[in-house]
Amino acid sequence: MLAFAIHNKKLVATRKPPPKLRPRWALVRVRLAGICNTDIELLRGYHAFRGTPGHEFVGEIAEVRGVSSRERDRWIGRRVAGEINVTCAAYGFRPLCRFCRRGMKTHCARRTVLGIVAHNGAFAEYLALPLENLHAIPDAISDEQAVFVEPLAAACEILEQMKVRRYRQAAVLGDGKLGLLIAQSLHAFGYVVHQFGRHAEKLRISQQAGVQTEFATQLPAAAYNWVVDATGSPEGLRQAVQMVKPRGTVILKSTQHGMVSVDTAPVIVNEITLVGSRCGRFEPALDLLRRGLINVQDMISGCEKLADAPRAFEQAARKGTMKVLLT
Amino acid sequence: MLAFAIHNKKLVATRKPPPKLRPRWALVRVRLAGICNTDIELLRGYHAFRGTPGHEFVGEIAEVRGVSSRERDRWIGRRVAGEINVTCAAYGFRPLCRFCRRGMKTHCARRTVLGIVAHNGAFAEYLALPLENLHAIPDAISDEQAVFVEPLAAACEILEQMKVRRYRQAAVLGDGKLGLLIAQSLHAFGYVVHQFGRHAEKLRISQQAGVQTEFATQLPAAAYNWVVDATGSPEGLRQAVQMVKPRGTVILKSTQHGMVSVDTAPVIVNEITLVGSRCGRFEPALDLLRRGLINVQDMISGCEKLADAPRAFEQAARKGTMKVLLT
Repeated sequence: MLAFAIHNKKLVATRKPPPKLRPRWALVRVRLAGICNTDIELLRGYHAFRGTPGHEFVGEIAEVRGVSSRERDRWIGRRVAGEINVTCAAYGFRPLCRFCRRGMKTHCARRTVLGIVAHNGAFAEYLALPLENLHAIPDAISDEQAVFVEPLAAACEILEQMKVRRYRQAAVLGDGKLGLLIAQSLHAFGYVVHQFGRHAEKLRISQQAGVQTEFATQLPAAAYNWVVDATGSPEGLRQAVQMVKPRGTVILKSTQHGMVSVDTAPVIVNEITLVGSRCGRFEPALDLLRRGLINVQDMISGCEKLADAPRAFEQAARKGTMKVLLT
Repeated sequence: MLAFAIHNKKLVATRKPPPKLRPRWALVRVRLAGICNTDIELLRGYHAFRGTPGHEFVGEIAEVRGVSSRERDRWIGRRVAGEINVTCAAYGFRPLCRFCRRGMKTHCARRTVLGIVAHNGAFAEYLALPLENLHAIPDAISDEQAVFVEPLAAACEILEQMKVRRYRQAAVLGDGKLGLLIAQSLHAFGYVVHQFGRHAEKLRISQQAGVQTEFATQLPAAAYNWVVDATGSPEGLRQAVQMVKPRGTVILKSTQHGMVSVDTAPVIVNEITLVGSRCGRFEPALDLLRRGLINVQDMISGCEKLADAPRAFEQAARKGTMKVLLT
């Protein structure tokens, strides 16, 4: 099969057999894959990842191993999206790690992560994932929508972390792909969302979904109980700390990596809570897409053939580009 | 009266009349005052504070204004400690600010802070505070203990922020004054506390109170659900992030100020919560002292006359010194 791999900070085409399957794993033929900022960072050296990147995908099941023929028949041909953290249970480790035992699968101590950590991803014709990671895609959701399930689930993770429902107003900093998904999903769940960004054409997408949008010129100080930083820049965290009220919460949803300078004095004096946020459950994301509450169509900047992945990466890395898909 | 004031990063003796009182404020004759790291930072220029520092004190009420003679009789001569945030209510502002209206008095938008922000503090013969800030000291608590009520209340604030009671194990980083108070108070409230520090003689103080102490040579990784950073150094926050389990909480209790470089990647990937923590309620602190559960006596490094405040500051700023008191 054709698969792209990161080698010396370049995306290189390779030919190799499809991945082998463990019991209760499935071989998935990739229909569509999305290029995420994390993929671009991986190419720049983040995580020293050397395999096939790609963790946003929709595909169909081509093979399943280690299940009854009846279960196999149910799976083959199914359209699926997949959770990206592969736990020690799926690799057959016993006993399970202390996090899996407590149900914190996304924090499994021995996990691999599809296309990010020690597990080949979706920029290939086929990928392998445990059945427990796969979610069937309802017919009402198109491939172009389904490829957004993974980042939308990451956006929905915030809802699980925002336990206090008393002040249902939130600010979202940043109008990149993740920022738009976050603003729209918070809005869909009943929050009054103020999104701050720098691009009229991007803000328009969440505006059309009912989000109040503003240019990030003069940011209000101490104005929100909840501020989500999805800027992807170190400056975003500093701005979020300024915008949150005393005893409020800043959710760190940026995908930048490396050291960020933070003035801890306002965090301590105003008793601010900062919460890191990563992957989320797929169920609420699928539900939002099925009900047509998230405009992802307007977030697609282009779609290229898998063979043209390097060109697609170049396009995705350009300023102003939103989601680039590989088919 | 004699009062010290910060002038050009020096502590200068001044002579001036005792502070005037607003209605329902009290004039307090200072019996003992403690030098805190924040005072040393103020002297170095933090907050650009120019008045009289000092926010840890025990004193007796010399005068009260704007109350009935019966209420006045009840207060005069009483031994008291005082909460340091003075709210807009106490200054007669109406309507109250949005934080005072919600009961968040320590976050009052118009607050002054005794000896820290726009309000003269305890390194003087007299200070003024609203009656609502003052707490009577029971006879069972000596002056030497009572002067620790304010920092101990700040330590107890953590208990209000640690809402999850499921994992009653916590690590405390740092064996300075605040670290020792935090470790002891968490221990007194039933937590299993591991305190990490660099000074055997300091760790011994909380050890005697029942805390498990260890030298901060090799810090365990991803080992605690709750980690309190009371190191006072930027390194402490980074260490705390390494020591906390995925989805665990780091409480920022350091008194360092200025920019701290943090790698946000582990915070986001491990979905860690960072919580800033400042002043606390006096009631639990008074209760702990009354029951003799906190060893503060061994934390006193010296006691100087108020007139010798500059020398006391020099002593307090020296490495290894613990609490220096002014009488």
